[in-house]
Amino acid sequence: MANDKKMVEAITSMEEDFAQWYTDIVKKAELVEYSGIKGCMIIRPAGYAIWELIQKELDRRFKETGVENVYMPMFIPESLLNKEKEHVEGFAPEVAWVTHGGGEKLQERMCVRPTSETLFCDFYARIIGSYRDLPKVYNQWCSVVRWEKTTRPFLRSMEFLWQEGHTAHATAEEAEERTIQMLNLYADFCEEVLAIPMVRGRKTDKEKFAGAEATYTIEALMHDGKALQSGTSHNFGSGFAKAFEIRYTDKENKLQYVHQTSWGMTTRLIGAVIMVHGDNSGLVLPPAIAPVQAVVIPVRQDKEGVLDKAYELGAMLKDFRVKVDDSDRSPGWKFAEHEMRGVPLRIEIGPKDIAAGQAVIARRDTGEKMTVLLSELAEKTRELLSVMQKEMLERAREHRDQHTYTAVHMEELLDIAEHKSGFIKAMWCGDVACEEALKEKAGVTSRCMPFVQEEVAKTCVCCGKPAKTLVYWGKAY
Amino acid sequence: MANDKKMVEAITSMEEDFAQWYTDIVKKAELVEYSGIKGCMIIRPAGYAIWELIQKELDRRFKETGVENVYMPMFIPESLLNKEKEHVEGFAPEVAWVTHGGGEKLQERMCVRPTSETLFCDFYARIIGSYRDLPKVYNQWCSVVRWEKTTRPFLRSMEFLWQEGHTAHATAEEAEERTIQMLNLYADFCEEVLAIPMVRGRKTDKEKFAGAEATYTIEALMHDGKALQSGTSHNFGSGFAKAFEIRYTDKENKLQYVHQTSWGMTTRLIGAVIMVHGDNSGLVLPPAIAPVQAVVIPVRQDKEGVLDKAYELGAMLKDFRVKVDDSDRSPGWKFAEHEMRGVPLRIEIGPKDIAAGQAVIARRDTGEKMTVLLSELAEKTRELLSVMQKEMLERAREHRDQHTYTAVHMEELLDIAEHKSGFIKAMWCGDVACEEALKEKAGVTSRCMPFVQEEVAKTCVCCGKPAKTLVYWGKAY
Repeated sequence: MANDKKMVEAITSMEEDFAQWYTDIVKKAELVEYSGIKGCMIIRPAGYAIWELIQKELDRRFKETGVENVYMPMFIPESLLNKEKEHVEGFAPEVAWVTHGGGEKLQERMCVRPTSETLFCDFYARIIGSYRDLPKVYNQWCSVVRWEKTTRPFLRSMEFLWQEGHTAHATAEEAEERTIQMLNLYADFCEEVLAIPMVRGRKTDKEKFAGAEATYTIEALMHDGKALQSGTSHNFGSGFAKAFEIRYTDKENKLQYVHQTSWGMTTRLIGAVIMVHGDNSGLVLPPAIAPVQAVVIPVRQDKEGVLDKAYELGAMLKDFRVKVDDSDRSPGWKFAEHEMRGVPLRIEIGPKDIAAGQAVIARRDTGEKMTVLLSELAEKTRELLSVMQKEMLERAREHRDQHTYTAVHMEELLDIAEHKSGFIKAMWCGDVACEEALKEKAGVTSRCMPFVQEEVAKTCVCCGKPAKTLVYWGKAY
Repeated sequence: MANDKKMVEAITSMEEDFAQWYTDIVKKAELVEYSGIKGCMIIRPAGYAIWELIQKELDRRFKETGVENVYMPMFIPESLLNKEKEHVEGFAPEVAWVTHGGGEKLQERMCVRPTSETLFCDFYARIIGSYRDLPKVYNQWCSVVRWEKTTRPFLRSMEFLWQEGHTAHATAEEAEERTIQMLNLYADFCEEVLAIPMVRGRKTDKEKFAGAEATYTIEALMHDGKALQSGTSHNFGSGFAKAFEIRYTDKENKLQYVHQTSWGMTTRLIGAVIMVHGDNSGLVLPPAIAPVQAVVIPVRQDKEGVLDKAYELGAMLKDFRVKVDDSDRSPGWKFAEHEMRGVPLRIEIGPKDIAAGQAVIARRDTGEKMTVLLSELAEKTRELLSVMQKEMLERAREHRDQHTYTAVHMEELLDIAEHKSGFIKAMWCGDVACEEALKEKAGVTSRCMPFVQEEVAKTCVCCGKPAKTLVYWGKAY
């Protein structure tokens, strides 16, 4: 790749220190700046523009399924948070409390939302009366606060951006259907837009959301072989409805509890994109969420006509998110800069290219360079972006599959956990004791019970008793 | 208008009680639901969809001028808030304080942002080093919290949604240029999109933003004759830069302070739309921000073919935001419902219309009904939406102009303030004592010193000394 040396100097290589490599990219690609507030990050334009593209596409897909957006207050009075027992136990330890407002001590303290189930439940109890009011399929885009001890940009921070969908349905079947529908929507989005393959499955009881009957998850494998939970969808059954008295009169005029779901994805998706696609030259962005899809870089821009030609190329590519870098930096500096920022295509144009009626295109993901006639530039750009989007997913899937291992016996699992890194497929008896033993002995947690089941053995990898289900195990972010 | 009686029963008329009329619309058009949290509102789908359309169009206009979006933490440590003296005095009394997090008392309490000047300044001090880093033209969409004693949905609430732009420039001229540019962008947006005419001007020193050198404002007149400050743009000069040490090295390698601006608009714009365009049948939405621009209502939908035809009309109008109301309510109920929600066009289709190959279109703003051939439906819809957008602005301007009075002497001003309601144009000497006297005696505040100046008298309306400037005075929300 061009400027390999320069980039190697600029960031730590991922083989040397993956965590430092991640931090270097986040900082040098100007995605995030640390703030003076412990555990809070500032999302800079290069990072926020990725989030805007994620939002736009996710929101479009949501709306196609009938989702409507709302905005709820950011504060939750303590008494409201306390209404559902399991839920409050899950969240109370990590909330931030507002105790004073307008110069006075509050009669009741309020937490900054760590998630808004309780607010939505209170809201639904107010507005749902009859079967005519159902279903409610609401979502909000907002920030939430969870008082984390150890934080990392995008992956775990005290405040983060997300969307949280909250729905209420007349029947249990409809709620379950919506739960699965949103999980699949998430997985399709990640695969088609972020080019990240997902394992779709269900969380064990130990790992499910506080207050949920069932939690479904999509799990991705990062370049270092660690797993990242990328989105979750919960079926609450009638648990919250009973705690909050959310009832409706059905067509037979009988009072019934509603059935609820919630589902969310966060800015941690940006962390996933970095850790799945990035390389030692920096970020590599899938074209679908690249704020700049192609950058035109004039070579010898001091020569008459070069800069004008660069602008002309920019105009030819107006159907894409294109940028002409006309700054007074050297071409080499620009190459490295836009590689660091993960711009999918670099288009070089210099005096010789102009004379020949052509330009040079370089792909960010493979480093491949090719010469293209200017008359074919727009078409070639479209083709390359499309190919790149597809191949990035394929490469990520290959990497994931190559780092997915199968263990039948405990020794085998311990060996893999110690010497390799990736998903470990192994059978499980369903006993939480085995789950805990695996965590303690091998340092792995159950990522999910995949929808696509296989029987890799008859017995539990841990206790040897008859197995109930296949589980993906792994070390996780 | 159809169903006039039903609607009169449903909401208080604006002539009887404007405040109650406003509250009725907000509730019955399902824009907002009250939450259990004092002073906080829940923005429901019908309200949030308006905000999304406002956001989308404003954001597009911002980006055309080079604005980039970011996201800043929602918490401000007390020491950071305290850095700029005037600013903290303006905001400290109305903030909410977080004192505990993660089960522990914080070493330093943090407020929930009432506005983010201090955070942006801290950020800019970190990332601005040389003239190459300027200008910074950043914006964020978020919610802010101000501990208000009296609250009203959209107009004044403890938490509200807004955008806040914060910029840093090399020169004072450039900062002033950006301040005015954004004010004009706001005013153009309000006129072209919300169909609300604005008076553009500058705030007096008494009314300017805490910490600003100059505050510019756009002021609108509501239907009851009260003014609403609809957007502000501030020039901070180098005040914050000095407090936060935001400096850059210029081309001569000399250290210079940056010059800053900030500017914001909020969900109160939705309140303005209600109070400028609404009538006694409910909300009236300008087509540009109507989540549903045309609703197709089948009449006698039990008759074979009627519902299918209604869907067909929906498909014919797919270029617009169209909804086919196929619910099992009566046509009369639907007429009233969509009038209440302010849908610009109602399209009725029944068996007789189908036989004649036509439909009936009713305009929400004028109540005008007309028969249109189905072959011309899409074209007519486009035309009517465009005409309506234009005429709504014209009517609002006429109303504003009819309720703008001129006062030369104090008695005249007192008489207008007592018996009429609207803007009062009167000359001012520039002395804050006169401003305070007018507030005390006439109950009016200075809304702005308009860009378009007239000399309606030679002397101050209050003290009779030589006048310096024309001021718009009024009672305000």
